[in-house]
Amino acid sequence: MDCHFKKCTDIFFKKKVFINISLCESDCMKTDPLQILQEYVSYASVSTDPAYAEGMEGARAFVCRCLVELGFAVETVKTALHPIILAERRGHPQAPHIIVYGHYDVQPADPFELWETPAFEAHCRNGRIYARGAADNKGPVSIQFAALARILTAEADFPLNITYLIEGEEEMGSPSFPKFLQDYAERLSAAGLVVLSDTGIPNTRQMVITTGLRGLCSLEVEVIGPQSDLHSGIHGGAIRNPISALAELLAGLHTADGRVAIPGFYDAVVEPQKWERDELKKLPTSEDEYQQFLGIPAFHPASGYSPFEAVRFGPTVEFNGIGGGYQGVGSKTIIPSRAFAKITCRLVPNQRPEVILALVEKTLQERCPQGVRVKVKLGEGGPPYRIVPPGRADTPADQTEAVRWAFTAAESAIQEVFGVETIYLREGGSVPIIAQIKEKTGLDSLMLGIFAPEDNLHAPNESFDIAFMERATQVYTAFFKKLAKAKE
Amino acid sequence: MDCHFKKCTDIFFKKKVFINISLCESDCMKTDPLQILQEYVSYASVSTDPAYAEGMEGARAFVCRCLVELGFAVETVKTALHPIILAERRGHPQAPHIIVYGHYDVQPADPFELWETPAFEAHCRNGRIYARGAADNKGPVSIQFAALARILTAEADFPLNITYLIEGEEEMGSPSFPKFLQDYAERLSAAGLVVLSDTGIPNTRQMVITTGLRGLCSLEVEVIGPQSDLHSGIHGGAIRNPISALAELLAGLHTADGRVAIPGFYDAVVEPQKWERDELKKLPTSEDEYQQFLGIPAFHPASGYSPFEAVRFGPTVEFNGIGGGYQGVGSKTIIPSRAFAKITCRLVPNQRPEVILALVEKTLQERCPQGVRVKVKLGEGGPPYRIVPPGRADTPADQTEAVRWAFTAAESAIQEVFGVETIYLREGGSVPIIAQIKEKTGLDSLMLGIFAPEDNLHAPNESFDIAFMERATQVYTAFFKKLAKAKE
Repeated sequence: MDCHFKKCTDIFFKKKVFINISLCESDCMKTDPLQILQEYVSYASVSTDPAYAEGMEGARAFVCRCLVELGFAVETVKTALHPIILAERRGHPQAPHIIVYGHYDVQPADPFELWETPAFEAHCRNGRIYARGAADNKGPVSIQFAALARILTAEADFPLNITYLIEGEEEMGSPSFPKFLQDYAERLSAAGLVVLSDTGIPNTRQMVITTGLRGLCSLEVEVIGPQSDLHSGIHGGAIRNPISALAELLAGLHTADGRVAIPGFYDAVVEPQKWERDELKKLPTSEDEYQQFLGIPAFHPASGYSPFEAVRFGPTVEFNGIGGGYQGVGSKTIIPSRAFAKITCRLVPNQRPEVILALVEKTLQERCPQGVRVKVKLGEGGPPYRIVPPGRADTPADQTEAVRWAFTAAESAIQEVFGVETIYLREGGSVPIIAQIKEKTGLDSLMLGIFAPEDNLHAPNESFDIAFMERATQVYTAFFKKLAKAKE
Repeated sequence: MDCHFKKCTDIFFKKKVFINISLCESDCMKTDPLQILQEYVSYASVSTDPAYAEGMEGARAFVCRCLVELGFAVETVKTALHPIILAERRGHPQAPHIIVYGHYDVQPADPFELWETPAFEAHCRNGRIYARGAADNKGPVSIQFAALARILTAEADFPLNITYLIEGEEEMGSPSFPKFLQDYAERLSAAGLVVLSDTGIPNTRQMVITTGLRGLCSLEVEVIGPQSDLHSGIHGGAIRNPISALAELLAGLHTADGRVAIPGFYDAVVEPQKWERDELKKLPTSEDEYQQFLGIPAFHPASGYSPFEAVRFGPTVEFNGIGGGYQGVGSKTIIPSRAFAKITCRLVPNQRPEVILALVEKTLQERCPQGVRVKVKLGEGGPPYRIVPPGRADTPADQTEAVRWAFTAAESAIQEVFGVETIYLREGGSVPIIAQIKEKTGLDSLMLGIFAPEDNLHAPNESFDIAFMERATQVYTAFFKKLAKAKE
């Protein structure tokens, strides 16, 4: 094995970037993604819980060390909460320049008792590696590291300019990102494209290119009735029950056929193109399989959409939580003073989160039932994102060369490794920073994701397919190589 | 003061009834209800919480001691949980025989921090005594004890046969009562009437006779969706959200004009008589005062009823609690696996709890929204109770002498003490044991209640008006005396 450590540290010190890791620990570049991932998941980097500060620091240091080993100049950008890792490997002015985005934080692992092996230890069994973060997003990041290590082992002066951007607050909604983006937009604009590994695939028989992410906005509605909980015998019948009023409000937000019943909600919605519906038909999963996976007696998509279409092309108003009154064992004969619901909306192009939030609030206030008061608390929002592959009827005329090169490189890499044509799928989830980057810097994102439905993201026993990791590493290796040659 | 202790203990031992109290502590009969109540409230007799076992035992022993002092033969009847105090003072075969019902348990006192003085200490200020149980039901019981003490001090051989029945599970729904009733129905049937102090008055300027109590039944509905909480981005739009389905179910249980929208729900309802509506018009409280007391922007009675009528004459389907999904701070983007609501119905004559429970369950199941499952768990129930004063158009032809005497005695006692004519009011609350006694023994109940709206029943800073206690004691003194003479 050829050790690049000497070279890495040279670059590192030449750039005079301070980084708080012990360089002595470093060894040669790792070309096996599993080897990287096994150590990476041992750092319990739960961003939402201050008790995991040590794990956050450990994961951050580990990523920095990996990047240093790969020859990157690494800095950590302080934020109000968890630092952002920014690393650069430049020096080829004529070559393409990409930003690779990832996150080093993970979801909380509780309930711990549902894990078959400890959440923050790598355990391999049945061809899979089990640990929190294995698929989201430590596995994909490890794959990209291994791909770069393979390339650089063979070609130390590999001509691709890369800026790594790995944040530590993705699992908590990236609260520090807008400020970071404001400060660093100009520097990021030097690149031509963002590459994102944090999206999904239908199964491990192929990789796909994600062409859209839904936007997101959140709010909370509270219905306020009497000034305190009341005896339901002494007062029941005279007054409006806040739970009843809330139920009426929530029930009124959808029609019987599953559409959102808020005036203006669909005004900005752009229906998917024919090519998008056609691509979705190539999805290698049946509705029956999906229904069985969910464990539901029937689907309930908004009218006009199939279940698979509804989660990708349709916007939603979803109730994430509800509470009010007595929730303990047995019964308590009260009329509660108040009740609340937590709501999030998934948005599709060209819905704007601030517009949708205003519409939902207005509708809830206008429909406030007699005898109660309605209070709405608006939360955060992020717009949807959509990218059109080159050569479609609706491909923007001003699509950049970088985007075209990236699509071509990814398609070709997928074909080489999996022997299939690329499928282009929109996804129902949201990565709000992608749209934020587009709005601030004009940069599009190529979303070449790696996690599969069976990986149990955000759930106990999260895991990642080991054989698939190797194939994904081959795809990313080929992708980076092809991209480097795009300008030739 | 004439001490009756010697006589009490004689009777006590003659009956060979075991009671676990120290008779040495006993002193003379107390004629001041406040003096009785001050000690009584110091026993923290919270029936639902096993941590209060000592308080339960203390309150029970205190009541037994009071009854022994008054010359009663006292026994405690073991139940599955809290013993029932059964005490008798007989010996006048020609005189009327009444059962006096009360309860020695109280509601939990938390949140303790909202109490201005400790919940289980008597504190007098502003003409009121503050303590948990002051009004419900320890104050009223103390008043009856003081009334009897006054009578017996003057006339030791007072010719009224009394059976005291004081239970310890009223605040938890009297779960042991049906079994007790089954075992003791025959013995209780020897009496002619039950006297109940555990009902309300509109204000302290008069006492009223309660002529009805609503019935009660409870159930819980659960809506079950996907087999686990789902990511609302990846799956949102394809499936029915259980909170949305629950909201639709609950919203469908009422019409816009406040009536219950369950087929058959009103079938057995007997509309109130004209005399009942006329009596209610004498209520010395305005709707404005009531609305201000509740702190609501508007009333919402079922169509056809005024707010005051709705809580007395109308049945309800009330939502006591709701829960599902994420209820913490901020947002969590899930589709919850399930959601639930706790429901109680208040019933009016001649609705039957078992019939209503079946109707609600059937309706919820029939209306189960597409894409989810509905599970209903039925709880307990008790029928409504209604009594008609003598001389009304609908007075039962077979109304007993005991009932007629009791009404006459109570009306006359109220007139003497307050100088007003009696108002006859139905009440919205439920005392299920009253209807159970009627069904099992045929005995009606004269409900001569004592607590007022400002007494904060079941809430922090429960209190009782001291001056009113004296007047209520005078009413009960006169009532018992008049009843004793009824047969003469």
